[in-house]
This record gives sequence, structure tokens and C-alpha cells, in this order.
Amino acid sequence: MEDLPLPNVYQVLEPGPVVLVTTAHHGRANVMTMSWHMMMEFTPPLVACVVSDANYSFAALRATGECVIAVPASRLAAKVVKIGNCSGRDTDKFKTFRLTAMPAAHVSAPLVAECFANLECKVVDTTLVNRYDLFVLEVVKAWRDPAQANPKTIHHHGYGAFAVDGRMIRLASQKP
Amino acid sequence: MEDLPLPNVYQVLEPGPVVLVTTAHHGRANVMTMSWHMMMEFTPPLVACVVSDANYSFAALRATGECVIAVPASRLAAKVVKIGNCSGRDTDKFKTFRLTAMPAAHVSAPLVAECFANLECKVVDTTLVNRYDLFVLEVVKAWRDPAQANPKTIHHHGYGAFAVDGRMIRLASQKP
Repeated sequence: MEDLPLPNVYQVLEPGPVVLVTTAHHGRANVMTMSWHMMMEFTPPLVACVVSDANYSFAALRATGECVIAVPASRLAAKVVKIGNCSGRDTDKFKTFRLTAMPAAHVSAPLVAECFANLECKVVDTTLVNRYDLFVLEVVKAWRDPAQANPKTIHHHGYGAFAVDGRMIRLASQKP
Repeated sequence: MEDLPLPNVYQVLEPGPVVLVTTAHHGRANVMTMSWHMMMEFTPPLVACVVSDANYSFAALRATGECVIAVPASRLAAKVVKIGNCSGRDTDKFKTFRLTAMPAAHVSAPLVAECFANLECKVVDTTLVNRYDLFVLEVVKAWRDPAQANPKTIHHHGYGAFAVDGRMIRLASQKP
């Protein structure tokens, strides 16, 4: 893993990939699958996400105020869906799905070594948690795997259907 | 345009496409390009989005509490980027970019006929507008164009780079 500059974090999340979210609580690491997230600010990078209180990760995120958003490439798709189909309540998902937990620099939640980007996040605003399960996160440190160049991500269309990134196009944008 | 059932709206937005947002204010329609949005609830469909107060659309959205999220397929990509590169302050974007405004059923903002999905939205929560320009929208009516089957959307990677949807994969998901 090498440093991903914080001003470039939006380039990883804005395209709308399915991501993994790791937490650590009472000495136990867990990981869930998530698609409901968006960028809110470039610098410092702020991310909004919905983590349902029906998810086992909700209590860990609420209690610790920390998580890692790990972005998987398409080769991990089958694993990512299986991670979303079970719960940390009764499954050690890192062990079951043979994911490699790596220590993060600033949060207790682990990085996922197999993912091409890992974003260490701290919860900075819980105003809308009770109403919508909406957390505001600040990305405090970001990593990318230089061995995974031009990763293709997956995008959830519902009922087990996912679009994999296809060709890249370049257009003259005046905006970042 | 035909009806898109509200419980299926998430299938259109969750994959993270670049979208257009229309507003109508003081009898004038406008349209902007947006990538910072996410689903928040299935039914009724709630959507969070960030519309910067630097955008001309901000005042219209704030004042009228209404907009339409229109989802373009990749053939509109060049137009979508140009729409994002200029402002409604000094440009009639519907005219300049030859978009067809169609009347919506429940909001004053127009549908965009060329888009494969159109979501009529009302602002239902402005708690985080002052802090983050974050609006919570409820989709009150949704439309899809039956003539555009399996549309490919675009996903913003920054600096004019966009990923176009590629192949679809199917995996056994137990979640919607």
C-alpha cells in the first residue's frame, strides 16, 4: 500500500463503486458490504454513508466512531456479495472469506489488503444517524495498492446484478 | 416515458451514475450535472445529494424545494460534461444543449426527455444544507424510457475521465 493523497480520494468513491466497510469493536474486526455512500467535500474529504442499524457494524461504528472504507476490484465481486449476505454476529468474515486485515495508521479498524484503495475514516457528524442511519465521515488517511493499476469496480443494480466498469472516456471537463 | 415503480428507484441511482438535476425558478428551467448523490431509503425512496451553494441551481432548489434527477446514458456524455462546465446564470442550457424539457407530474422542474430515467423529487430535510449543502430528497414519482433498454451510464473519475458501464455480472445476492 502506498499513500493516496487526500485531495484525490473523491476519484475513488465518486464513481459509485460497491465498497467494503471494516470496523473493530471489543477487539474483534468485522466487514460489511455497502453501496449507499457519496462524497460531500473534497478537502478534507468528507463522505456520507448509510449504515443501517439492522447491520451488526452499526453498533461498532457508532461506539468507536471509526471505520475503513476498502474498495474492491471486480475480481473480488463474488466474495463481496457473500460478505453482504451474512452477518458479523455469527461469522468471522475475515477468516471465512480469507481477507487479510492490515493495521491502519489512525483508526482501530483494519485495512483490507486485497482492496486497491483503503480509506481510514472517523465519524465527524452524527446529526442524521437517528433519523436516517446517515453518518458523516472524514477520511483521515488513504492508501492505494500500486500493484493494482486501473482497477475495474462493480456497481450494484439490485437483485444480484452488478455492472463492471467498461471503457474509460475522456472529455474536456473544467471541473475536478 | 412510462412509470418506474418507486421501490425500484434505487436500482437507477445506487450504481453511482453521473446525473442531471433540473430546477425551475421564476419561470425559468435550468439543469446541472451532479455526481454527489446516494440512496438513503428504499420506500419511500430518499436520496441525499450535495448541491454546492456556488451552483446557480442551489438557490432554485432551496427556494422551490423541488427538482428532477434525470439519468443520462453514455451517448449523452459529451453533453453532460458541457452542462457541467457552464452556469445557468448566463446560459439557457436546455436551448444551448438541445435538451427537451417535458412537464413533470408533481414538481415544477422539468423532465429531460433524452434521459432514460427521470425522478421527480421534493426536498424533505434541509438540516445539513447550511453545514454541507446536503439536501435530503424524496422521490415522489419516477419515469423510465422504455425505448432505452439496458442503458450504459457514466461514472466520474475526475479530470474529465469517466468509466462507462461494461458487462453485467449476476451473483446470488440475498439483499435487494
